[in-house]
Amino acid sequence: MKKISFALIAVLCLCVPVFAQQALWGGQNIVSPEVHADHTVTFRFLAPKAVKVQLTGDFLPAQTLAELKEGKDGLWEYTTPEPLAPELYSYSFIVDGLKSIDPNNVFLNRDVASVTNIFIIGGGRGDLYSVNQVPHGSLTRRWYESPALGLTRRITVYTPPGYEKGSQKYPVFYLLHGMGGDEEAWVTLGRTVQILDNLIAQGKARPMIVVMPNGNATQEAAPGESSLGLYKPNMRLPRTMEGSMEKSFPDIVKFVDTNYRTLANKAHRAIAGLSMGGFHSLHISKQYPDLFDYVGLFSAAILPGEEPESEIYKNADEKLKIQFAKKPKLYWIAIGKTDFLYNANQDFRKTLDTAGYPYTYYESEEGHIWKNWRIYLTEFAPLLFK
Amino acid sequence: MKKISFALIAVLCLCVPVFAQQALWGGQNIVSPEVHADHTVTFRFLAPKAVKVQLTGDFLPAQTLAELKEGKDGLWEYTTPEPLAPELYSYSFIVDGLKSIDPNNVFLNRDVASVTNIFIIGGGRGDLYSVNQVPHGSLTRRWYESPALGLTRRITVYTPPGYEKGSQKYPVFYLLHGMGGDEEAWVTLGRTVQILDNLIAQGKARPMIVVMPNGNATQEAAPGESSLGLYKPNMRLPRTMEGSMEKSFPDIVKFVDTNYRTLANKAHRAIAGLSMGGFHSLHISKQYPDLFDYVGLFSAAILPGEEPESEIYKNADEKLKIQFAKKPKLYWIAIGKTDFLYNANQDFRKTLDTAGYPYTYYESEEGHIWKNWRIYLTEFAPLLFK
Repeated sequence: MKKISFALIAVLCLCVPVFAQQALWGGQNIVSPEVHADHTVTFRFLAPKAVKVQLTGDFLPAQTLAELKEGKDGLWEYTTPEPLAPELYSYSFIVDGLKSIDPNNVFLNRDVASVTNIFIIGGGRGDLYSVNQVPHGSLTRRWYESPALGLTRRITVYTPPGYEKGSQKYPVFYLLHGMGGDEEAWVTLGRTVQILDNLIAQGKARPMIVVMPNGNATQEAAPGESSLGLYKPNMRLPRTMEGSMEKSFPDIVKFVDTNYRTLANKAHRAIAGLSMGGFHSLHISKQYPDLFDYVGLFSAAILPGEEPESEIYKNADEKLKIQFAKKPKLYWIAIGKTDFLYNANQDFRKTLDTAGYPYTYYESEEGHIWKNWRIYLTEFAPLLFK
Repeated sequence: MKKISFALIAVLCLCVPVFAQQALWGGQNIVSPEVHADHTVTFRFLAPKAVKVQLTGDFLPAQTLAELKEGKDGLWEYTTPEPLAPELYSYSFIVDGLKSIDPNNVFLNRDVASVTNIFIIGGGRGDLYSVNQVPHGSLTRRWYESPALGLTRRITVYTPPGYEKGSQKYPVFYLLHGMGGDEEAWVTLGRTVQILDNLIAQGKARPMIVVMPNGNATQEAAPGESSLGLYKPNMRLPRTMEGSMEKSFPDIVKFVDTNYRTLANKAHRAIAGLSMGGFHSLHISKQYPDLFDYVGLFSAAILPGEEPESEIYKNADEKLKIQFAKKPKLYWIAIGKTDFLYNANQDFRKTLDTAGYPYTYYESEEGHIWKNWRIYLTEFAPLLFK
């Protein structure tokens, strides 16, 4: 073995690109996006033959594209005229009319069937969405049995720092995705792990288990994670808002209470969801009024359900009356000012006001977007189990 | 609540794209890639203004690009002339010279700093890389303390189906990545979860825990998963092959044996790795000759190490002698015929042959690529703990 030459180290260094994957590894020596100290951001895209390179992103005014300028050797560039506020942002390039990801940014989020690059501006809430040097919880993807749905289903579970040590029992927060989402959405787009790690480290949220199930009643798992293979995700799935998910929810609670060290009572259970998940949270919490003391509706769809004759949606007023007679500790409604569900949420508030049911209302800017759902999570989690 | 009109359902359906994310959701009504019944594959790319659209992929001959043909309304298309063999494949489009991902395929793998689309051809080994309706294990990302490295570090752990129930103890397989990789590589590029689920379901592999650590001694976690933020991954990191990772390995074994129900002895521990991970496996297993009865070198770097004076690399012959005197149950060497490390592995075999140390040799086609490392995993895992 001693005979093997040290020259091999030199060979190794020359072969570095080969070392990962002979065929596909590569890359450009370009930094993009570059977040400057003042929080302006420069985007760069190498396209010597392109006629026009534009940028689309949720930091630009709606329906607006930014124009990159061509510099030396076909390197196009755009710098934001103003610093960006702390936030997680998404963007894509548009090269001669074609959407393109940034080849110099490996961080991508999938939202239903669309993939875009992301970056984070730190400070403020941006720090809550970042990984910091704080104690970290664990994130597990596993499978549970749902006899009510007749499926074995994938589920994502966050356990707080320290869970694995000792015998302490924890409260549980059930966090539901919207239409087109799945058990991955709150982790990838919602930054749940980072938000919980940081809020817990700051002493703002109580250590808790966060359970993120798949809310599409016919779906075993997220696209690519079931035996259906690598198929194109679909926004609209059957049986999402017709009572099945709500009806089967006790299967999930049972699974969690038998597989984790939980405080298995109403005072230590919360449920919240965005959009369709808010709809689910509304109906699950009133269908099972002894399960949840904390309910969060994030930009919730307020609807009678697709099958109003389903037992889940019948006698809604009566069920709400029972739920509120049992005095949930927190009923929290959040909506953005320009959300297309804004009026529906105001109507629902009137229903609650008229009946004298107490709730907390949180109104944000903007509409039906992940930025708001991350904000709502950072606002809601600190209110739980106190 | 009854007053809320059913017309809202109609509104909801009209607003479906808005329902996920007002700004960024979108998509094309195009299927790509389309895997046909005969396993030929059609790729499609919509680019009305493009002059040339090409395809690069690991199913094409090396250094070869396939040319797409422009059809109606700027939809470019290419169908493979022959059926593809069962496998997980990677590809990208090249549009007028610019690499582009397939906007109709949300499944992407990152290899160091490069992101490409993937698809799977089923049958044969392709079925081992697919999610099937079999019992599923759990996959957890968590953090452990490494006193030897002075870091809290991220680690990926697969536990087999049924682990959470009962009190059975399991053998442990430590599976290490290559240069530029991290604790994500074996899960994303290596399809470890699918391979293990399927091999266990078929009775070909024994139920086992698979531990995938981060092998870069200065790194807390994969790019994007540490407090360094969302930075561009780098192929070459400091202190990867100078003894630190090898020396600190008992921290990982201790963490696993104290946090999981393990059969905590040599007969029930395996270690294997690809490329740099093979190098680590070689040195760790000889440095700690009582830890592992199963050793796998997948396209291993066979080197004296960057710091030959490190105690890890010193007295290599003597340490190998001690290791083999203790009769490991399996010492397994795999390499591809065109791998740039082929000759180094043949030299290492000669060293073992000369000394009379028994090992098993597996030679494959092709070179230093993930296709081979998935194959090696499917070959090696069934040999363990029998």
